[in-house]
Amino acid sequence: MKILGMDSSGLVASVAIMEDNVLLAEYTTDYKKTHSQTLLPMLDELKNMIELDMSTIDAIAIAAGPGSFTGLRIGSATAKGLGLALKKPLIEVPTLEGLAWNLWGSDRLICPIMDARRGQVYTGVYEFVAEQETFVMKAVMEQDACDIKALIEKLNAMGRPVIFLGDGVPVYQNLIRDLLQVSFSFAPAGNNRQRAASVAALGAVYFAQGKVVDARDHQPEYLRKSQAEQEQDEKVKAAESAQ
Amino acid sequence: MKILGMDSSGLVASVAIMEDNVLLAEYTTDYKKTHSQTLLPMLDELKNMIELDMSTIDAIAIAAGPGSFTGLRIGSATAKGLGLALKKPLIEVPTLEGLAWNLWGSDRLICPIMDARRGQVYTGVYEFVAEQETFVMKAVMEQDACDIKALIEKLNAMGRPVIFLGDGVPVYQNLIRDLLQVSFSFAPAGNNRQRAASVAALGAVYFAQGKVVDARDHQPEYLRKSQAEQEQDEKVKAAESAQ
Repeated sequence: MKILGMDSSGLVASVAIMEDNVLLAEYTTDYKKTHSQTLLPMLDELKNMIELDMSTIDAIAIAAGPGSFTGLRIGSATAKGLGLALKKPLIEVPTLEGLAWNLWGSDRLICPIMDARRGQVYTGVYEFVAEQETFVMKAVMEQDACDIKALIEKLNAMGRPVIFLGDGVPVYQNLIRDLLQVSFSFAPAGNNRQRAASVAALGAVYFAQGKVVDARDHQPEYLRKSQAEQEQDEKVKAAESAQ
Repeated sequence: MKILGMDSSGLVASVAIMEDNVLLAEYTTDYKKTHSQTLLPMLDELKNMIELDMSTIDAIAIAAGPGSFTGLRIGSATAKGLGLALKKPLIEVPTLEGLAWNLWGSDRLICPIMDARRGQVYTGVYEFVAEQETFVMKAVMEQDACDIKALIEKLNAMGRPVIFLGDGVPVYQNLIRDLLQVSFSFAPAGNNRQRAASVAALGAVYFAQGKVVDARDHQPEYLRKSQAEQEQDEKVKAAESAQ
């Protein structure tokens, strides 16, 4: 079984091809180019390097949100286009679950945090449970947009050691040091940002459970309205109350 | 601080650029091409994609063995050439330590195994110890060539849950199931083979400890003589004893 994984939910652009239990190829960049300049050229590069026949892909796993609105749209549009052209299903991998998967095999709580601006993070809390020669990842708290201080309170209440990762770490690490009462660590480079290999590997788990969607039906999960939509809502509300 | 990481110790070819605590780029393939066809073209591709000025690299971390003799020679020659041209030091990362680093943050014993043929594996046993917001990797058993059954006996004596990874897993997983008495798991695709990001990240730890070598002095650590050398030794021995 061959899975194409893609993640463009944050600054990182990443593509990966996985076959059964082997990563055939992965290409990741974390650079100031926009994903429209990186994602497809990177996939094309991988495809040529490993002489990949795209029609042999069984499914496309995509980091399906939350994340950067533009990034998610570029990723979803690419995945939809490929899925429709190749007639293959999509696997929607929640962005925070893909991130948490980077720390497969840990016994700690895994808490990815993505900076969502205005004191908020996109986050979730996960744990790995050993089961039959592998680990199953379980959500202790499903992904959501939440105030960073509210998240820290929840982690204090859980009372277990936690590992943080994600682009929210450089933004909120001092607040975490000040307020978190359980022991914690920060994941190092290589494991602390999005990886398409994680999206593909977790995608394979979902695929085996039949959790796929038709490319036509896929939509990214933004979790929050965009800044523009929020401002529009506020304007409408203000106009209504002025009447 | 910017580190170039490279690993061509096995079937995988992998290059990565890390800056401080962020992975700027990583490119990995596990394909039947030889490393002389992949390693430098992959580095060139990354360099162009992230507009990298090679002179800004502070050190080159190389998976320094054990592994495939040809793979190690191509990797070491590439690292030496770049180090001499750029006048930068090399960081020799033991191959098995780079592999174990993939499972950063686990509380289990980490046991990478690389198939070394004739019932042997290149292996080591590692653990991660939480220390000041991060984990320090420690060797419970330093890397060595060893009989797979002897390794399993040692792990049984250690009596702790263990996670296996590496290209030795598909070869010896049934033997492990038969003989290992402690609980165990096998790492999934994405974490179960060499990654240059791990070599670079562990290289950064070594760099901070001053563990660098001049490019001129670097030599890969084969751990065993090559098949050709062993046969030559046996011929010489046989000729001597026939005298």
